[in-house]
Amino acid sequence: MSATPPLTSARRPTLRTATSAEIFTRIITHGPVSRVEVGRLTGLSPAKVTKTVGPLIRDGFVTEGEHAESSSPGRPVYPLSVVPRSMLAIGIKVNVDEIVAVAASIGNEVLTSTRRTLARHDPETVVREIVRCVRRLVAKLGDGADRLVGIGVSVSGDIDSASGVVRHSPLLGWANVPLGATVAREVDLPVVVENDVRALARSEQWFGLGVEAESFAVVTIGAGIGCGIYVNGDVVVGAHGVVGEIGHLPLAPPDAECVCGRRGCVEAVASSGAIRDAVRAGHDDPALTLADAVALAHSGDRAAVDAFDRAGTAIGAALAVTANLVDPEVVVIAGEGVMEYDLYERRIREKFTAHAFGAAASCRLVVRRHTFIDWACGAAVAAFREALRPVV
Amino acid sequence: MSATPPLTSARRPTLRTATSAEIFTRIITHGPVSRVEVGRLTGLSPAKVTKTVGPLIRDGFVTEGEHAESSSPGRPVYPLSVVPRSMLAIGIKVNVDEIVAVAASIGNEVLTSTRRTLARHDPETVVREIVRCVRRLVAKLGDGADRLVGIGVSVSGDIDSASGVVRHSPLLGWANVPLGATVAREVDLPVVVENDVRALARSEQWFGLGVEAESFAVVTIGAGIGCGIYVNGDVVVGAHGVVGEIGHLPLAPPDAECVCGRRGCVEAVASSGAIRDAVRAGHDDPALTLADAVALAHSGDRAAVDAFDRAGTAIGAALAVTANLVDPEVVVIAGEGVMEYDLYERRIREKFTAHAFGAAASCRLVVRRHTFIDWACGAAVAAFREALRPVV
Ligand SMILES: [Zn+2]
Ligand SMILES: [Zn+2]
Repeated sequence: MSATPPLTSARRPTLRTATSAEIFTRIITHGPVSRVEVGRLTGLSPAKVTKTVGPLIRDGFVTEGEHAESSSPGRPVYPLSVVPRSMLAIGIKVNVDEIVAVAASIGNEVLTSTRRTLARHDPETVVREIVRCVRRLVAKLGDGADRLVGIGVSVSGDIDSASGVVRHSPLLGWANVPLGATVAREVDLPVVVENDVRALARSEQWFGLGVEAESFAVVTIGAGIGCGIYVNGDVVVGAHGVVGEIGHLPLAPPDAECVCGRRGCVEAVASSGAIRDAVRAGHDDPALTLADAVALAHSGDRAAVDAFDRAGTAIGAALAVTANLVDPEVVVIAGEGVMEYDLYERRIREKFTAHAFGAAASCRLVVRRHTFIDWACGAAVAAFREALRPVV
Repeated sequence: MSATPPLTSARRPTLRTATSAEIFTRIITHGPVSRVEVGRLTGLSPAKVTKTVGPLIRDGFVTEGEHAESSSPGRPVYPLSVVPRSMLAIGIKVNVDEIVAVAASIGNEVLTSTRRTLARHDPETVVREIVRCVRRLVAKLGDGADRLVGIGVSVSGDIDSASGVVRHSPLLGWANVPLGATVAREVDLPVVVENDVRALARSEQWFGLGVEAESFAVVTIGAGIGCGIYVNGDVVVGAHGVVGEIGHLPLAPPDAECVCGRRGCVEAVASSGAIRDAVRAGHDDPALTLADAVALAHSGDRAAVDAFDRAGTAIGAALAVTANLVDPEVVVIAGEGVMEYDLYERRIREKFTAHAFGAAASCRLVVRRHTFIDWACGAAVAAFREALRPVV
């Protein structure tokens, strides 16, 4: 790779304690918000809020509303907001066949985006294309690039975010790839690597469901089936890198063979690959594509309808398990698979209703048609979170 | 009920913010512990720690070690500990056939205990016996009763702790019983009602696994099968009162009928009632007891061994689901059922190993033989937690 001028260094607020970071995060996620409300949300004293907010206003990260928001008696209330473009981050979602990258602001705007098709997905190719995306976005941002605080890269599989290592990504066929360090050598910005479903959940935590809901799960269906869990104020990271692996719960017929080598996994009948293979087998046509399978199911073809029914049944069981075990306020169903949600829906509802225990049946199921831009924004949120870690 | 003199009012520390409560809690759970370490554990500044600790020392809730614990250079370190008997709580575990009650200290000592057999378990009888237990423990404590800060009652089922209502307890056959308010009318102390498995998990959080582990699950086997989850710094409470209902995950053979009316639930083959019924059916002996079933299984009786095998297989699947979905550092297997853990163990391990995904297989499984005294201590922890809520 040819030498290029280094990117500018990060510019980020100085937060000395976890509580300062929490206060700033609440302003980001809940602004415009009064100091009193920030105190209530964080359980911190108004004095602590005022002390933290002062330097953030001075340094241009937080702004105070010019007009009192409340007409109630007493002192006027000047709500606090984050200055949207005071911090920018690049978020990158790595798929098997393409990379999608955004430059996003801390105000949850997408300033610019780019994508690159991947002919191969070996680590070297992927790193090269990630760096190209970063350079292109930096060029597009112009002077705005000074505000970049970091880069987030999201990849499916078992990710060690602390070290930036992709420990195992079955979809990419990677094991122990030091992705973060390799990218960081090429760009003068901190790089954080995160599991893609967890990054999407973090994006919902900051700018979506997490603003109101106390807890939620994001279940993604498509090439893989995964789950991000938000509870007790944070996305669950897991102790062994397998959190949310609902694609491999033993909820499908026990003879169904999964790509992971086990039997009876949800993905064995419900991943888009498993659905396509079932329709291929039904029509004895090894060249049939997923798009063909979808078209056949829409036209009422028996083999195709059955394949989606089996998938919906396994996914419905996985949703019931998530509801009974974690009991989130809301479950979001997302991922590429929701583009054909009508093909799964009946069986998902049937099986969920059959096994949701008691009040779990009243758990809200919401379908979200996220684009890969949304997934990339999740990676940007991971980069922002890293930038807000307390400086000790 | 005859009029009796009211109990003394609660004496508890004044904690004005969630962070003050967190600091005190860390001293309780991690003491003796230095101020620096408390700051590290809570992410709070040393100044904040010192400011919170001052009044706690003055009021006799926290004590400072007389001797420096560290021989490293620099200022000597005087570790902080909770004063064990500065706060006491009564913890009560309600079973179908008995009540077990303890008076415990904030230092995790059981000062005294009592139990009452229940001839019936209607709400009126249970309340009367709870109040008797409280009076007896108060009498036994003598002057120490001045230090009581509250009463915790733990009951299986869907509990609304905020209102003290038992929304649904299938085991007791209760629906919408305002247990907390009813008990509180008879005793001059705050009463908190908590789900029994969650209370046990809280006890592990404070005085057991939670001291070291970042996350854990407590899976209880016996009359019911449940799960308490500790992650992101707290026990998961759930949005609809069904959190941890692994007894009703669809992991058993799909034709197995559960007491809840569904089919294929774990409890349908793995509760102690289901095991007993299977052995009864095998021997065509409707009077056979659980103790008989255990004895038969130990003697190698086919029907009994098969019943425990089926139970172990379903429990093993539930453990794998917990590991793959929540990915805790440790899973504790507890509950009355572990007294005969040897009868389940082989199938539990087999099924867990077959379905634990990737690194989840390295999740530690630990067996704990808790007594009902331990469960009652969990209820006392629930009462202590309530007493440490910030005073706004
Ligand atoms: Zn699998
Ligand atoms: Zn059931």
